[in-house]
Amino acid sequence: MIRSVLTYDTTAKSQIRTITPELNELIIQSGIDNGTLLVYSLHTTLGLMVQETSEPNLCQDFIDYLTSRVENDGNVYHHRCALHPSGACVEDRFNAPSHIRQLLTNQSLMLDIQGGHLTLGQWQDVAFFELDGPRRGRQIRVKITPD
Amino acid sequence: MIRSVLTYDTTAKSQIRTITPELNELIIQSGIDNGTLLVYSLHTTLGLMVQETSEPNLCQDFIDYLTSRVENDGNVYHHRCALHPSGACVEDRFNAPSHIRQLLTNQSLMLDIQGGHLTLGQWQDVAFFELDGPRRGRQIRVKITPD
Amino acid sequence: MIRSVLTYDTTAKSQIRTITPELNELIIQSGIDNGTLLVYSLHTTLGLMVQETSEPNLCQDFIDYLTSRVENDGNVYHHRCALHPSGACVEDRFNAPSHIRQLLTNQSLMLDIQGGHLTLGQWQDVAFFELDGPRRGRQIRVKITPD
Repeated sequence: MIRSVLTYDTTAKSQIRTITPELNELIIQSGIDNGTLLVYSLHTTLGLMVQETSEPNLCQDFIDYLTSRVENDGNVYHHRCALHPSGACVEDRFNAPSHIRQLLTNQSLMLDIQGGHLTLGQWQDVAFFELDGPRRGRQIRVKITPD
Repeated sequence: MIRSVLTYDTTAKSQIRTITPELNELIIQSGIDNGTLLVYSLHTTLGLMVQETSEPNLCQDFIDYLTSRVENDGNVYHHRCALHPSGACVEDRFNAPSHIRQLLTNQSLMLDIQGGHLTLGQWQDVAFFELDGPRRGRQIRVKITPD
Repeated sequence: MIRSVLTYDTTAKSQIRTITPELNELIIQSGIDNGTLLVYSLHTTLGLMVQETSEPNLCQDFIDYLTSRVENDGNVYHHRCALHPSGACVEDRFNAPSHIRQLLTNQSLMLDIQGGHLTLGQWQDVAFFELDGPRRGRQIRVKITPD
């Protein structure tokens, strides 16, 4: 069993990036031929998806859809980072739209591993969906467990 | 390995409530330091989410979004509890909007456990999202498995 | 531990079909009384859900909702199958709406098994949500692991 964290600097407000190669690389490093992979985001404005994310036009369609259906004006909403009871907010943000969009993605994925790589359909890739970028050091938790 | 059911009486038509403390308490009770937590709702109008749910204004934003994007008028839709083929419906409801909103949440979550508590990002909490309350005895299934 | 693939020919553009009986049959075949079931779609235009899918009017409501909220005109969007970098696309499609609708479903589900069957609430069933049918040979991956 191995745990790992994938870390990315994102480059746009909204960005979809395929991470299947990195996940398969972790599987190879683990030496696990058959098992299960758990992957989830450690952020509330970055989600995950299993989709045809190698096709960049489709990624733009996903971004356009979420951007048009959740208004891009944070002032429509009430949330401010500074209102979190922890008091840990350093830079205040009016980014409720980013949070709402993330709710509409997948937040936790389990996938099968067989023959040393992820079991995915022909058009499927795993990707992260950045919804509040650009940000440095975005983290994705990965855990690989043998059968 | 332990199984448990968390039970809640909800207090509003739509309500988001953080359950991270109860999940971490179950982990402590299990004596499992490193493992995996599975959590899912046993209802079709109550979902789950991983979000910044300690910030109550953001929770209201989530509720406002789903309420405005799925009409609150059950008569727009065709569903009635009494149409379920089991015949088990006691109190008929026209609550298709509650079901549709639940479809847009997460229905099953897996999360890593390390050092005796859930591995979550700084702003992340696990919460239930009641969409057809108030109801008594809402149940959430939890299963904790050691590595 | 057993792996299996459920295969279906779908019969409509959008179709919801309950698969709980097939999942419970696989559990019986596995001989596993207590464990965990992982299920996910191997397609990018067919998703999964846990809902009251034995009530056909509610299934129609889900279809109507996604169809009305994601325009049914693929030309609004930029995606074409032929743009996928693999070059594997045989029949070009302008089906971005089908992909976007699938993003709004669940893509990977974990559920508990106890006493030889899935642990589900009274109104819950597992179903697939075809969003780009009719298609032959749609595949759903299932993996059943004992406790």
